[in-house]
Amino acid sequence: MEKNLASVLLLLIAISYTLAKDTTAKNERKDTKEAKETRPKLPQTLSRGWGDQLIWTQTYEEALFKSKSTNKPIMVIHHLEDCPHSQALKKAFAEHKEIQKLAEKFVLINLVYETTDKHLSPDGQYVPRILFVDPSLTVRADITGRYSNRLYAYEPSDIALLYSNMQKALKLLKTEL
Amino acid sequence: MEKNLASVLLLLIAISYTLAKDTTAKNERKDTKEAKETRPKLPQTLSRGWGDQLIWTQTYEEALFKSKSTNKPIMVIHHLEDCPHSQALKKAFAEHKEIQKLAEKFVLINLVYETTDKHLSPDGQYVPRILFVDPSLTVRADITGRYSNRLYAYEPSDIALLYSNMQKALKLLKTEL
Repeated sequence: MEKNLASVLLLLIAISYTLAKDTTAKNERKDTKEAKETRPKLPQTLSRGWGDQLIWTQTYEEALFKSKSTNKPIMVIHHLEDCPHSQALKKAFAEHKEIQKLAEKFVLINLVYETTDKHLSPDGQYVPRILFVDPSLTVRADITGRYSNRLYAYEPSDIALLYSNMQKALKLLKTEL
Repeated sequence: MEKNLASVLLLLIAISYTLAKDTTAKNERKDTKEAKETRPKLPQTLSRGWGDQLIWTQTYEEALFKSKSTNKPIMVIHHLEDCPHSQALKKAFAEHKEIQKLAEKFVLINLVYETTDKHLSPDGQYVPRILFVDPSLTVRADITGRYSNRLYAYEPSDIALLYSNMQKALKLLKTEL
């Protein structure tokens, strides 16, 4: 029974991924012709609804620099505005008070566009996908969710696991002082 | 007389640059100790006040992709929140209706953190600094302001020159259809 449930969830993620990709592709095409229809909500925020009271970095380079200089791990959230699974996870993330509190201990970045750094997609470029990076600039490939074919995906129902993974990420690989 | 005026302006830019660097360095140090005092205004926006009604890209990679796919030139604004010259230029930029209108024809990005792309700092990393990139992904080093030692710097009084440079950037190097 649990296995079946997991399969259904995986299927849902896969579908949502495909849909998200399709929608993105469509939006890219639309951009040229009818930019106004696909305009994002203005003004756009760096938090994009993942926690308006948190401090977000704009670029991954900035996040790496801040992580090194403050000795905080980075939490990288890849998502898409058009992906219902990303939206659902975002809602759970933003409403979870302990997560929002714990998030202050991280250098935070959320991206709707993939970086050129392949270390950030150890098992592919799907959304939603959450990775942690240690201040030693090591991607914590060992901190995973519960889906074996998309290791860094989380469903809203996995929010407690995500919280626990955040705690794990805060135990730094090397403690330099 | 004009030369003297130009010298004074250059001096002002230089001073502001030094001050801005100092303040940034201080803030970096503070970040570790008293993060709350130096918190940015929340929620942070992608526009950062350069035009809340415009669409801004988050990362330079995203801007390059959008430029290629939409055949729009990129306008890259490097600035700092703590730099009075950046602030003054931002105000002039945001209040200039024609510029705000013309800006819609660009892929826009404003950065408070340098990228790793050296093409974006042909004569150094100073702020404020505005560069244009053609959809053929060529940095338009030929589109400059009026200061010979900081070619891509603009004062609020140079806003008409900036407008004219935006018009120049819209005449693409290669027109591919």
